[in-house]
Amino acid sequence: MCNTVLVSDSIDHTLRGSWTQSGAGSARLSAHAVRWLRQRTGIGAETTPAVPSSLVDVPESALPSAARADLVELLGQEHVLTEPAQRLGRAGGMSYSDLIRRRGGHDVAVPDGVAVPADPEQVQLVLELCVRHDLAVVAFGGGTSVVGGVGALRGDKVAVLVLDLARLSRLISVDPVAHVAVLQAGTRAPEAEELLAAHGFTLGHFPQSFERATIGGFAATRSAGQASSGYGRFESMVEGVRLATPAGEWRLGTAPASAAGPDLRQLAIGSEGTLGVITEVAVRVRPVPVETRYEAVVLDGWQAGAEAVRALAQSRALADVTRLSDEDESEVQFELSGAAKSRALRTLLRTRRIAEPCLLVLGWHAATRQELDERRERTFRALRRFRSVGLGRRVGESWRDNRFSGPRQRDTLLDLGACVETLETATYWSGISELRSSVRAALLRNLEVDGRRPVVMCHISHAYETGASLYFTVMGLRDGQDPLGQWDRAKRAATEAIADSEHATGRGTITHHHAVGTDHRPWLREEIGGLGVEVLAAVKRTVDPTGVLNPGKLIP
Amino acid sequence: MCNTVLVSDSIDHTLRGSWTQSGAGSARLSAHAVRWLRQRTGIGAETTPAVPSSLVDVPESALPSAARADLVELLGQEHVLTEPAQRLGRAGGMSYSDLIRRRGGHDVAVPDGVAVPADPEQVQLVLELCVRHDLAVVAFGGGTSVVGGVGALRGDKVAVLVLDLARLSRLISVDPVAHVAVLQAGTRAPEAEELLAAHGFTLGHFPQSFERATIGGFAATRSAGQASSGYGRFESMVEGVRLATPAGEWRLGTAPASAAGPDLRQLAIGSEGTLGVITEVAVRVRPVPVETRYEAVVLDGWQAGAEAVRALAQSRALADVTRLSDEDESEVQFELSGAAKSRALRTLLRTRRIAEPCLLVLGWHAATRQELDERRERTFRALRRFRSVGLGRRVGESWRDNRFSGPRQRDTLLDLGACVETLETATYWSGISELRSSVRAALLRNLEVDGRRPVVMCHISHAYETGASLYFTVMGLRDGQDPLGQWDRAKRAATEAIADSEHATGRGTITHHHAVGTDHRPWLREEIGGLGVEVLAAVKRTVDPTGVLNPGKLIP
Repeated sequence: MCNTVLVSDSIDHTLRGSWTQSGAGSARLSAHAVRWLRQRTGIGAETTPAVPSSLVDVPESALPSAARADLVELLGQEHVLTEPAQRLGRAGGMSYSDLIRRRGGHDVAVPDGVAVPADPEQVQLVLELCVRHDLAVVAFGGGTSVVGGVGALRGDKVAVLVLDLARLSRLISVDPVAHVAVLQAGTRAPEAEELLAAHGFTLGHFPQSFERATIGGFAATRSAGQASSGYGRFESMVEGVRLATPAGEWRLGTAPASAAGPDLRQLAIGSEGTLGVITEVAVRVRPVPVETRYEAVVLDGWQAGAEAVRALAQSRALADVTRLSDEDESEVQFELSGAAKSRALRTLLRTRRIAEPCLLVLGWHAATRQELDERRERTFRALRRFRSVGLGRRVGESWRDNRFSGPRQRDTLLDLGACVETLETATYWSGISELRSSVRAALLRNLEVDGRRPVVMCHISHAYETGASLYFTVMGLRDGQDPLGQWDRAKRAATEAIADSEHATGRGTITHHHAVGTDHRPWLREEIGGLGVEVLAAVKRTVDPTGVLNPGKLIP
Repeated sequence: MCNTVLVSDSIDHTLRGSWTQSGAGSARLSAHAVRWLRQRTGIGAETTPAVPSSLVDVPESALPSAARADLVELLGQEHVLTEPAQRLGRAGGMSYSDLIRRRGGHDVAVPDGVAVPADPEQVQLVLELCVRHDLAVVAFGGGTSVVGGVGALRGDKVAVLVLDLARLSRLISVDPVAHVAVLQAGTRAPEAEELLAAHGFTLGHFPQSFERATIGGFAATRSAGQASSGYGRFESMVEGVRLATPAGEWRLGTAPASAAGPDLRQLAIGSEGTLGVITEVAVRVRPVPVETRYEAVVLDGWQAGAEAVRALAQSRALADVTRLSDEDESEVQFELSGAAKSRALRTLLRTRRIAEPCLLVLGWHAATRQELDERRERTFRALRRFRSVGLGRRVGESWRDNRFSGPRQRDTLLDLGACVETLETATYWSGISELRSSVRAALLRNLEVDGRRPVVMCHISHAYETGASLYFTVMGLRDGQDPLGQWDRAKRAATEAIADSEHATGRGTITHHHAVGTDHRPWLREEIGGLGVEVLAAVKRTVDPTGVLNPGKLIP
């Protein structure tokens, strides 16, 4: 019925092994994986452990005592944190540069204090207090920003306060008829799923940061989860937003759709803490799927793979999870999982004339077995005209089981002396392969150290009718002398390649789901125009007249 | 296999007859229809023809001669219109109040001149000219606004110029790989479909205003078409927008999705000519469907009908067109089409214990017969648990064939002395029936004349997972003494009912797809908050510092 060959159970079983996702998997790497990485990239010749955080030199808190006293009066002693370890624990996010700085114990922007309000009302009062005392304020959820979005920058203020939303972790309401739930912004994704599951619902938002990231952070950064092909980007799940701003509280969203002027929710979503602090989000939820199925397919080469995903997207046949790895990412996945050693797999690929294996992971969530079967059938029908090999369920399930472990594995790689980081973009189908090539080239060129080139991997994990995201992961030898400069040059070159990628329809966006933060800020003007920047600045002046909210982020 | 009884071909044929859509159909009404309406509402006792437009008293143009000269120099003599008939032809939109004023020949806000630029560059120059000469400027596409959106209001300016986009009617580009087309803003929907069809594509946007409305108007008003369940609201089709503003040109949209800060496209979309004049729109297009099928089903009562549509929406089983009429709208449809006289139909309804027939029109568009069959099967599977009678294809097809004729039929009704108008809202499923009741009650109460009550019809034509739109049509006896006051009171009462409709999740929006214009402006503050209004005003000051763009609309 379909061009895809399903492998036999025994091969399926063989492949499971220690299969891990792209450069991810469990925190530990197998001996084979380490050997292979060393041979391929030079990583692992020496180990570079992190400086223990107890040895990091944390500057004195500049929080004025009057401000501290007011905070204590408002929140209670135990919810105003000024100890060095407490402040260091909210110093920045999870980008490679953040990690390198913290591992090295220097140049870490440490906040002068941490406020932990209990509810939206207290958040509002903290903001008003910050205005009164002229404190910069950085909203902090899971701290998983990889673009400098939660760096404790002081701007022109007297001190910088982190507003930790950890206590805003309640499920406020569930409307089982409308399928809408209201969650507080500090609720972490696993807790949100647990709270919703008790009512039979799921949000279906599974980014790689899932284990730590929060509902408010998803909204503030326009997050996209790994199942976005089925559940949509986070902004498409948002029905309403409650925001604390220095100019007062702001509630947005009344109905599922509206023509009552511009959609101002879309100003709050993606505002990255610069236009207000999101305190509650009303989200569309779905019944927990009764049936799920993950499987993997191999296609022949990036070009065919991208065409296949385009065919799925344009014939409305996408699986809820649709994730295509390019040749290099697939190679890493086969090597790190041990699957590359499988003779059965090699034979199968040769038989099917798959010269350049590209892995396609597919996952469906459905209410009934019939629905799942129909949707799966629809996906495979659209794949018929592409030469492929089916790898069965175990590889797909193994990907699912390991899909959040990337961040943990990164620490292992950093210990091995790696430069390991990701960046992402999106563009229209007509320019996707060219953009992938130019970004790859920029990364390869700029990360070379001692004649060793990194491995540059790429995948499509978010597909739309008109285009898709491109997600790059680099793993290479760290420049021990100048690790930050090494990545900075590569990131700059890659972002220039994205910004210069004008083609028939549009070009690459500087970020598809990581947000702007500090790292993409220099390129925002090019993306939204000078007038766009002026508009954002005007909005900011309206809601944050003295500029206390997250200075130095987003708005150039 | 399914609970729906498909009627025999002969009944199907009987029903076709002169079947028309809710109070719509061809411009002429059958003798039976007129009799029935007279008996039901009192309409038609006397005829009230319109004052010929040649007799309307058009005020002198206040356009300063220097401004006129500059316009002529810029656009050429033939593209600067100042004759009374030319100006009257662009005086306001198509609301009942607009029509009553024009039919009565008084209180019509007539522009002082009409500029017809050739391209986006000329639009930009016209705006700069308007700033220089302090002219208000009203962007004008199809002139189909039903909320006062294109009324020629002068504000505090010396004169008001209509900027007619009729010459911006080109298809700029089609990207057959990305499925993206760029259309100029003045392109009318039928022309857009024709231009796209030459490349094998369709936009799939079919609002009732289809025959006259323009691409730019769709974007400026957050339009939703009758097939929105399949193709999405217009804003979900927009990839990019090119805007002329007094502060310069603004291009928005680079990629299919982005996390580069707030989505500023969503400020341009729905800006109703107050933040700029949209000159080009990049839209997602789809291949022209190879197979289409329309059919109709009768469900028992509004409650069951709404539950059925909710079931479809929440199990992703919606047909591309999904349109549920309430009991009154269904009655009118059965009566005006002559179907009410069908003994076969009456028997069928009785047999199936359908006490309060509610008509559900379903339409599917698909690339293949198999896809169509599968989607249709999926829809009917979700409908299984609702008692229903299938009316077959002819009724559905007849609805499709007549779906744009409502506006034409309205003139006939106005001649018959009717007060005939529509209004719409949307809310979450948990509040939908209560909202329908309260709006119905407000309309019934406030439109009564001489003891005669109107017929108030309602349908759901846009369904979402979390809720749906409610579209009301009233047909009743016009208050000959005070026709504008009669409607104004009813509209006000209905809108108050919407604004006060707080329930478990959200409330009604003041408009789901008609936009704000002048008519909903008093309620916008309640919808987006005081801060929302301040934000819009700040954005407007940035892009339109002297306030020439469409004064008196949208922003309170």
